[in-house]
Amino acid sequence: MYILPTRQPEFPAETDDAQGVIEWALRHVDELAISFSGAEDVVLIDMACRLARAGKGRVDHDRLSVFSLDTGRLHPETYEYIEQVRSHYDIDLEILSPDHTELQALVREKGLFSFYQDGHSECCRIRKVAPLRRKLATLDGWITGQRRDQSIGTRDRIAVAETDAAFNGRNGSLAKFNPLALWSSERVWAYIREHDVPYNPLHARGFTSIGCQPCTRAVLPNQHEREGRWWWESVEKKECGLHAANRGAA
Amino acid sequence: MYILPTRQPEFPAETDDAQGVIEWALRHVDELAISFSGAEDVVLIDMACRLARAGKGRVDHDRLSVFSLDTGRLHPETYEYIEQVRSHYDIDLEILSPDHTELQALVREKGLFSFYQDGHSECCRIRKVAPLRRKLATLDGWITGQRRDQSIGTRDRIAVAETDAAFNGRNGSLAKFNPLALWSSERVWAYIREHDVPYNPLHARGFTSIGCQPCTRAVLPNQHEREGRWWWESVEKKECGLHAANRGAA
Amino acid sequence: MYILPTRQPEFPAETDDAQGVIEWALRHVDELAISFSGAEDVVLIDMACRLARAGKGRVDHDRLSVFSLDTGRLHPETYEYIEQVRSHYDIDLEILSPDHTELQALVREKGLFSFYQDGHSECCRIRKVAPLRRKLATLDGWITGQRRDQSIGTRDRIAVAETDAAFNGRNGSLAKFNPLALWSSERVWAYIREHDVPYNPLHARGFTSIGCQPCTRAVLPNQHEREGRWWWESVEKKECGLHAANRGAA
Amino acid sequence: MYILPTRQPEFPAETDDAQGVIEWALRHVDELAISFSGAEDVVLIDMACRLARAGKGRVDHDRLSVFSLDTGRLHPETYEYIEQVRSHYDIDLEILSPDHTELQALVREKGLFSFYQDGHSECCRIRKVAPLRRKLATLDGWITGQRRDQSIGTRDRIAVAETDAAFNGRNGSLAKFNPLALWSSERVWAYIREHDVPYNPLHARGFTSIGCQPCTRAVLPNQHEREGRWWWESVEKKECGLHAANRGAA
Repeated sequence: MYILPTRQPEFPAETDDAQGVIEWALRHVDELAISFSGAEDVVLIDMACRLARAGKGRVDHDRLSVFSLDTGRLHPETYEYIEQVRSHYDIDLEILSPDHTELQALVREKGLFSFYQDGHSECCRIRKVAPLRRKLATLDGWITGQRRDQSIGTRDRIAVAETDAAFNGRNGSLAKFNPLALWSSERVWAYIREHDVPYNPLHARGFTSIGCQPCTRAVLPNQHEREGRWWWESVEKKECGLHAANRGAA
Repeated sequence: MYILPTRQPEFPAETDDAQGVIEWALRHVDELAISFSGAEDVVLIDMACRLARAGKGRVDHDRLSVFSLDTGRLHPETYEYIEQVRSHYDIDLEILSPDHTELQALVREKGLFSFYQDGHSECCRIRKVAPLRRKLATLDGWITGQRRDQSIGTRDRIAVAETDAAFNGRNGSLAKFNPLALWSSERVWAYIREHDVPYNPLHARGFTSIGCQPCTRAVLPNQHEREGRWWWESVEKKECGLHAANRGAA
Repeated sequence: MYILPTRQPEFPAETDDAQGVIEWALRHVDELAISFSGAEDVVLIDMACRLARAGKGRVDHDRLSVFSLDTGRLHPETYEYIEQVRSHYDIDLEILSPDHTELQALVREKGLFSFYQDGHSECCRIRKVAPLRRKLATLDGWITGQRRDQSIGTRDRIAVAETDAAFNGRNGSLAKFNPLALWSSERVWAYIREHDVPYNPLHARGFTSIGCQPCTRAVLPNQHEREGRWWWESVEKKECGLHAANRGAA
Repeated sequence: MYILPTRQPEFPAETDDAQGVIEWALRHVDELAISFSGAEDVVLIDMACRLARAGKGRVDHDRLSVFSLDTGRLHPETYEYIEQVRSHYDIDLEILSPDHTELQALVREKGLFSFYQDGHSECCRIRKVAPLRRKLATLDGWITGQRRDQSIGTRDRIAVAETDAAFNGRNGSLAKFNPLALWSSERVWAYIREHDVPYNPLHARGFTSIGCQPCTRAVLPNQHEREGRWWWESVEKKECGLHAANRGAA
């Protein structure tokens, strides 16, 4: 079990030292994993690999623990990109799939695009949240790429480190780290370009935020990235349940 | 249980009367379903719906039983097309997904594109064959869109009706109907155009045969459609296991 | 002939009132035309049409004078968009083509992609600058969509109104108006969305700046728009000669 | 001047020996050129280059005379492909452009897509036929990739060699060779694959026949290639004027 040590002096609060946060998490949390969405949160993997190469932090079998949620509806480009990341960083990438009985029941009743009719939460719950919940139940903490600048209303108060209010870990409490919370999109992309980090080719076709294929679209110049996600829904619903606690906190 | 009545005089052998074969199957087989791949085998659905509208054949709840295998790696266009077919014909379309534990084990060990390295059969077995086997085990017979002209070596001796040599039905023996066995690709497309049947938009982008996105590609003018499938493998392996018996028969 | 009245009190210097600048130009300049590139400078046309509908400004035959340079190498989407703008605003849109003897000589000697080898200026000179020069020689003034934020080094000192230092008008001196000089890209796009202005569909595929097809590409999130133009050349050369005076001024 | 020697015993009539026809033409006609459309007629260039390498036929400066008509509205892929052919075969490729005054007058009056309203002949006349006429007026003979199987009604009687009934050469009469007249599409593509001839990438996206971008589209499986050209017009009008004599002959 892990209780987030909020009173420890070294606790990574309100810092933009993203790599430092990852290092801190690797040092203090036993079962820890990075959640990789197939988008620009790849910088978390890049940073963790730098730490591993520098001999810092704990890695299982000389490898990082990284997982992705394969909803079964990602863009072909995202599947190729996830594989590219796996190969480029030589990491053990766990890819989680939804339960087929739940999926079949939903699709049989409502078809393959029910989210356009009655909202994305039911589909996200089966394709994303349930597999995530299964995975988190084996961990003490997880690391995500959430940033405050991604979303007005749901992400603008994200903490760099917190106790997850929505999910439980293997021993109850679960630590959640958002090392990029204080980073801007500009800074993330400057990092990607400076360090030659491989990126999803959809980013070169107008996609800023990337999720499932039917629920993501390219944005216009100067349009907020979140306008490319679940564009038929109101702003405050634009969380898929992975970070459900954000809604309450906001 | 269903024993294929090979000696019954009306048995649909060596006929190109595709709608007649479907009508025969609907009349003689209790639990019967059409397997729809998201490609030009849509003509089977069109024919069955014509029969239903004409009051012929047996349909559950005034609906046809049709299923598709969602491997989790279909083209976005195919998902949209499957939904279009469901809505256009107002049918109850069952969409079958692979078992997530099997899938996760394969992908964790070999990544998302193992088929390019060691062949498509392992991936097809998990994503297509196993879900199909589960479904067929509830049926007495199934209807497929296989045609002799689709593949030299594996499909050129397909029977219009046969006892499935690869799968079992709910009571053991399983009938398999290939109403289009004697149809040419030209005839299928003439039917589609004549009857304004909705088609997968990939067909208007050079795709003749359509399967999973990573394992299908457009063909050149006058190139055989099967060259667009598993193109890195030799011709005789180009069956995904759904019609495994073809390999032995050929 | 037109001498830019720099001392007239109402002269539109250093203003962000773009529509006011167009109105001023329409009132004070005899032969005047808007240069439309097929990109977000469409806002100039939208503003001029608003003025015309409000009975302000001078329009020939109740129509605006607008021209575009058809280099023969625009994106198919841009041709469609130019036509859409012509039809949407019901304007008389003049489309200028390069001289075929000059073009044939260049292409025969160097092929269709010489710009990748020895720079874009030779091709731009034939396909863009010469037709522009022919057109400007019939005018007293022209209106462009240049903005200071488009380019560091070549456009950051653009004036809202100036005497064109690179081209001559029908009577010698030529007025040049850049009503959007002080506008940001954000403001242009806010205008487009607020007023439902039709936009080039390439803008919804990652293109910020749009020029000729071989010389334009989509940019990554947070990448400067000018990085999508002549990306194989150094920053200070990124003017096509239409605004050649910018280079000297910078 | 060249008078087609219809009574010479070796005259290439009704033969499918395409390379032999080219060789015959190279031997008997002084000013001779291949018209290359940017599609599968590339096999003519491949054959002529084989002849040149074998020391057969006459070539200027060890080079073939080949020309293409750049209408200003070709697909980006076609421009890239034409350049690829120029470079691959190291040939002197002349690219002909339309007269800008004629073009500007048409486009100003009717816009960029007038062909969808009142037929393609006016646009083709300016963008294709007039530049072709200028070029042919410098020749004694030309070689085209026309085939009888391309078009029912207009091309099904094409001769392998004929006196051009629509255009004049530098000395009056003009010879016209159609070496592929008796070839099927299948045979052309078998040649392309067997000899690793570079092909237009649009052929791998459903395009069989390729012309101008707005006037060409991909076809469905088993759809006749000519259905992808000027699809809004009736069959008998589907010649662009390059081969105008076909219409009368048919």
